[in-house]
Amino acid sequence: MSFRFEIEARDGKPRAGRIVTPHGAIDTPVFMPVGTLATVKAVAQDVLEELGVEILLNNTYHLYLRPGVEMVRSLGGVQRFMAWDKPILTDSGGFQVFSLSELRKVTEDGVAFRSHLDGSSHMFTPESSIAAQIGLGADIIMAFDECTEHPASRDRARASMEMTLRWLQRSRDYFEAHKEEVPWFAKFSGQTQALFGIVQGGMYPDLRRESAERTVEIDLPGYAIGGLSVGEPRPMTYEMVDAAIPYLPENKPRYLMGVGTPEEIVHYVAQGVDMMDCVLPTRAARHGLLFTSEGKLTIKNAQFARDEGPIDPKCGCKVCGRYSRAYLRHLYASNELLAQTLNTVHNLAYYLDTMRGVRQAIILGEFATFLSGVKPPHLSVP
Amino acid sequence: MSFRFEIEARDGKPRAGRIVTPHGAIDTPVFMPVGTLATVKAVAQDVLEELGVEILLNNTYHLYLRPGVEMVRSLGGVQRFMAWDKPILTDSGGFQVFSLSELRKVTEDGVAFRSHLDGSSHMFTPESSIAAQIGLGADIIMAFDECTEHPASRDRARASMEMTLRWLQRSRDYFEAHKEEVPWFAKFSGQTQALFGIVQGGMYPDLRRESAERTVEIDLPGYAIGGLSVGEPRPMTYEMVDAAIPYLPENKPRYLMGVGTPEEIVHYVAQGVDMMDCVLPTRAARHGLLFTSEGKLTIKNAQFARDEGPIDPKCGCKVCGRYSRAYLRHLYASNELLAQTLNTVHNLAYYLDTMRGVRQAIILGEFATFLSGVKPPHLSVP
Repeated sequence: MSFRFEIEARDGKPRAGRIVTPHGAIDTPVFMPVGTLATVKAVAQDVLEELGVEILLNNTYHLYLRPGVEMVRSLGGVQRFMAWDKPILTDSGGFQVFSLSELRKVTEDGVAFRSHLDGSSHMFTPESSIAAQIGLGADIIMAFDECTEHPASRDRARASMEMTLRWLQRSRDYFEAHKEEVPWFAKFSGQTQALFGIVQGGMYPDLRRESAERTVEIDLPGYAIGGLSVGEPRPMTYEMVDAAIPYLPENKPRYLMGVGTPEEIVHYVAQGVDMMDCVLPTRAARHGLLFTSEGKLTIKNAQFARDEGPIDPKCGCKVCGRYSRAYLRHLYASNELLAQTLNTVHNLAYYLDTMRGVRQAIILGEFATFLSGVKPPHLSVP
Repeated sequence: MSFRFEIEARDGKPRAGRIVTPHGAIDTPVFMPVGTLATVKAVAQDVLEELGVEILLNNTYHLYLRPGVEMVRSLGGVQRFMAWDKPILTDSGGFQVFSLSELRKVTEDGVAFRSHLDGSSHMFTPESSIAAQIGLGADIIMAFDECTEHPASRDRARASMEMTLRWLQRSRDYFEAHKEEVPWFAKFSGQTQALFGIVQGGMYPDLRRESAERTVEIDLPGYAIGGLSVGEPRPMTYEMVDAAIPYLPENKPRYLMGVGTPEEIVHYVAQGVDMMDCVLPTRAARHGLLFTSEGKLTIKNAQFARDEGPIDPKCGCKVCGRYSRAYLRHLYASNELLAQTLNTVHNLAYYLDTMRGVRQAIILGEFATFLSGVKPPHLSVP
């Protein structure tokens, strides 16, 4: 078995589980830090290990442009390339093409786009996205989908959903024909990657249900919910998650893409989600926005200039154990590189601690109590 | 005793010793990494500890402007401010005023200057520099001197040297009257800082000798050689060091300021130097220039794009133990923050390993052999 998912405990909809991949195991629910270009910005791999990170997300779009898929493949795949001997998940590249590239043109075949770096012309199709992801060699890879924009009319959302379903079939067909080309196929005695499908359907609950039902007709090791957190109000996000989750298999991991705040990720677990990723903790950190048990904190504020306390007195991370708010404010105000490292380490610790608390609460059957201590997430918009 | 220096071994001119300060001991010869704004750029304090760093240099000019001396004093001094519970040395601010600030005007009283940050007007005098350094609370502080520019006429070099001697007396007088104001005076049971004097004299050996002789007439715990590595050819630097060293006390540490390449620092030890500092390893790292046992390496070069080897196969640092040149090149070419961290950690490890090798060689009486393995330093200009 290249991939398996075991549920260890349930507490209502929330599940505590374990995903096993060729590069190791992952406790779920899990928050996956984003390491765009095969690096979590400003944080070294040994520090990620100290934080207890078990899986990273890398962006196919970015690695396809730099250093290029063939380069990473020739160096043994992205785990070996970045000296991270644990699981990695790559997205399909579709979302970045939609959000970053210029002159995007979507056809049935795929998406033509220009690089945000140099304007050069490229094309992603379901086949080329999967080829790129096989070359990069992440443990979990994603079908090539169209992230429906918001707002979108019902007709537009349906058409987009239908194309995503056709693209899923093409993604799966290409993967099945080429899965043995993953760079570590021989090293891991013939193990291959796990391909996940993605539910779309815009902001229409019935389309979300239909998308889920038709996506799971293709038997895959896991399923994701995409096209959310794209500008819609948060209650609508919850509604769309609720619309899809009942139609995803109980025994497969459920991955909600691109979310959320610390409060929100707890609430998504409450809905039955197992995996999440978001740039929020890392990107916010680089802008001096820190997450704490008391809420958000903007470290540049003058009120912290003489504050000898840690970012969060309840946090056990090594940044809170050593440095004062006054020092962190000084680093940030002085534009020092160390500000970005320390702020990111704290925010990731806060997210990972939150997920560890969530998991423990599920195992103890105390998730409802845990949840009641979390602020209503629609009050905290990123 | 607030400060003492013990020589453990001699091997010709080179000495292996130990400096004891209120915040701990330092093995010499020592290379001091530069932590300008109370941070070694891009490297966290625990990583500096792992590297075996025993003393950092902080810049008074920078900390005076941001976050300000009174702020650091009120937070317990710079060691506590930056959560670095080991020795720190501050320079006098004079060199940065000369090199960074605008509209500088030097008079007998001191130096008027405008901040490089916002153009605001400031004045450093021997008294105000020492007051600032007492407020910052480093373990070792430097007399306020004039770093004579290069080239300088003999008359100009003498006049500048004479002013530095008068400023030394004023620095010492102010220090003696105010040394008990250091923020950690009570915490360390009445221990105070160590004030070092600075030899100047331009590029004139007889002035260097005279400066050394007259500087040591003031009894201080250590003496520095300043005004070198300011654009002169390297053989001239060695000549000036040789001109001063014999006139500095055997039983006091000798600090050569602002030097040098890995090869050069070994040769300065050969001349009898105990302490050095330089931005070279850290600044070069941020520009992708790495020091190795095979010489310098520019990590951005295309030749490293597929190179799976470490920066330096002979280096035992954690960067060389984990990451390939190909990955480090990718990080640097992609302008990733982690490039700056990893490059800096390696370069500092290389400098510190060099100094540990030097010290061990002195203790074993094998310094000449060690030196013979080092390239002639005048061939490697930074």
